[in-house]
Amino acid sequence: MPITEPEALSPTLQLAFELLSRASVTPDDEGCQNLMIERLTALGFHIEQLPFGDVKNFWAIRGHHGPVLAFAGHTDVVPCGPHTNWEFPPFEPCIDEHGMLCGRGAADMKGSLAAMLTAVERFVRTHPEHDGRIAFLITSDEEGPAVDGTRAVVEHLRERNERLDYCIVGEPSSTSRLGDTIKNGRRGSLGGVLHIKGVQGHVAYPHLARNPIHQAMPALDALVSEHWDAGNDFFPATSFQVSNFRAGTGATNVIPGEVEVVFNFRYSTEVTHEMLKSRTESMLDTHGLEYHIDWTLNGEPFLTAEGELVDAAIRGVEAVTGERPALSTSGGTSDGRFIATLGAQVVELGPLNDTIHKVNERVRASDLDELSRIYEATLQALLTDDEVSV
Amino acid sequence: MPITEPEALSPTLQLAFELLSRASVTPDDEGCQNLMIERLTALGFHIEQLPFGDVKNFWAIRGHHGPVLAFAGHTDVVPCGPHTNWEFPPFEPCIDEHGMLCGRGAADMKGSLAAMLTAVERFVRTHPEHDGRIAFLITSDEEGPAVDGTRAVVEHLRERNERLDYCIVGEPSSTSRLGDTIKNGRRGSLGGVLHIKGVQGHVAYPHLARNPIHQAMPALDALVSEHWDAGNDFFPATSFQVSNFRAGTGATNVIPGEVEVVFNFRYSTEVTHEMLKSRTESMLDTHGLEYHIDWTLNGEPFLTAEGELVDAAIRGVEAVTGERPALSTSGGTSDGRFIATLGAQVVELGPLNDTIHKVNERVRASDLDELSRIYEATLQALLTDDEVSV
Repeated sequence: MPITEPEALSPTLQLAFELLSRASVTPDDEGCQNLMIERLTALGFHIEQLPFGDVKNFWAIRGHHGPVLAFAGHTDVVPCGPHTNWEFPPFEPCIDEHGMLCGRGAADMKGSLAAMLTAVERFVRTHPEHDGRIAFLITSDEEGPAVDGTRAVVEHLRERNERLDYCIVGEPSSTSRLGDTIKNGRRGSLGGVLHIKGVQGHVAYPHLARNPIHQAMPALDALVSEHWDAGNDFFPATSFQVSNFRAGTGATNVIPGEVEVVFNFRYSTEVTHEMLKSRTESMLDTHGLEYHIDWTLNGEPFLTAEGELVDAAIRGVEAVTGERPALSTSGGTSDGRFIATLGAQVVELGPLNDTIHKVNERVRASDLDELSRIYEATLQALLTDDEVSV
Repeated sequence: MPITEPEALSPTLQLAFELLSRASVTPDDEGCQNLMIERLTALGFHIEQLPFGDVKNFWAIRGHHGPVLAFAGHTDVVPCGPHTNWEFPPFEPCIDEHGMLCGRGAADMKGSLAAMLTAVERFVRTHPEHDGRIAFLITSDEEGPAVDGTRAVVEHLRERNERLDYCIVGEPSSTSRLGDTIKNGRRGSLGGVLHIKGVQGHVAYPHLARNPIHQAMPALDALVSEHWDAGNDFFPATSFQVSNFRAGTGATNVIPGEVEVVFNFRYSTEVTHEMLKSRTESMLDTHGLEYHIDWTLNGEPFLTAEGELVDAAIRGVEAVTGERPALSTSGGTSDGRFIATLGAQVVELGPLNDTIHKVNERVRASDLDELSRIYEATLQALLTDDEVSV
């Protein structure tokens, strides 16, 4: 029998149930943040609500001096699609017969929010006079445009020179078992839409036309074959991928006048987006193309190669699971890219990501209790001189 | 004042008016062929109507032995688009103040039909016992699918071993002045739709995907760069053109699973379509592509490099215009491709082609009278021992 009433469950799972029952599809928050704020206020946190546009955000901080460790996360979830495609109603959380907590956001990332909050509750109860400061940076738009969310809060903090030393983002970083992977960075993502102009004409008279498809091929082949960098200890080599290629009038006897090529770089910290742009353009120039590129910088790469936060997170995971986590920078981008710009050490540490953004999103219920203990152990490692044990 | 009543005009222009006033858009004939049949019957032609599907065709022949010279042409015209885009109603012929005969089909090719018919009328009147035989091969679908038109009539003639030695197709071959160009062949046209299969995936994980755009580029570049042949005295080098290239899901972060490339060969008599297919496929094999090609043979090349017909047509043009025509094989395909398969010498000789398929199609009225004299002179050159003079 699935468990649908959380009364007998751990505080972490009870809070997860409360958050998961709110249909907070981006940018809606549906009261999730108020739930968190209420409990953080009770712990002595100073709360600052920072709405921008239709996005709700808050910054909460406890303590008055010393290094700041922030937990970062989002209360919004991605859309569910037709609820009839789900095995269970996506906003009516339950724990199924296999012990899985089911619901949209269970893994990404309301489960992490619950685990952070209960970890801090236990830590503050046992260490009311902890070193440093503890903060929360919470948004209701990480899954959407992400313009008025963490990015805007970070700019706000930067303007008043707010200190941020360490940040644990609750993104689901684990792949096979809880804590097997900590993300200590992400590649950059640089997109481009390339328009190559030719001269339209009839296929029977190619000397009167200039076929932009023909011109595009050697140039794009050179971009595909280019050795952009060799990567480094933390990042694979920068990669260039063409995702879309459109040319042609539909008629079989017409040489088209234009080509549109959509491409994307995933890049390491060995290069910058400026370098990639200028190298791309000079290669296209070499091929004599008449072209224009609209560039979109989706996110710069960030990396916390080493330091207290990475050490503390590893010790936290080891203390709870007995296994040493791997460091990884793979995958897409996250709000970590914004937070890192404040000079903070940033890691992402959260539950398994195998069901995120899919129907029937779920996470092992006991993993959230363990995750809460991992966060607590990490707090101990960073903000106390205690032996780490939870 | 434009001339809208043809009574005072030459027999050629009178017949052209009659044909142009019929809105015979492919495959409609609207009585054009009956007009021609009536006059050919009066000249002693044996008429055979050969409708196939919704296409009207006829074969007419005069004489009982010796070489056969056929005039070939079509009574259908391409659509006009909105008539309001025209300066004059497209099916109400007139001769404007500049002496231009205006109307859809004036150049392509009702003007030629009128010129052929009056040329033959004069020739038969002066040479009732001419050498050889004169024929007409007329269709109402040259501008459309062209399956039930000349192609079907040619198959019919082939089945009963009908002799065809020389064929003058009335296509508008002239470019700057009447008779400046005789087409003595056409390139072949071979089309292909190439599907290249890859493995779809996320741009952030290219090692888990296989990008078919990336695979396509060096392979297509090799096809574009390939030296297919050097052409010959009559044909330019065979050319390969990509007309359409489609790949991508529209999303910027997805590596597509398939590419569709539409291409076309215009090829000389130095290669065959079988050679082009096998060379293309072996080049794609070399590049290790997983692919499939749907081929379409639009027309095989044909060429009448030299011979009595080319000589006669040149002499005919020279006799009337005083200028020697150039031989050319440029441009698209024509019904000549079908007729040539009977082993006939084939030339295309007709008025200026600068307004064909456009709005306000027109041809110099006096050119049609001259064209009729050119056809008559060509008949003289081929079927009499007379000095050519008209």
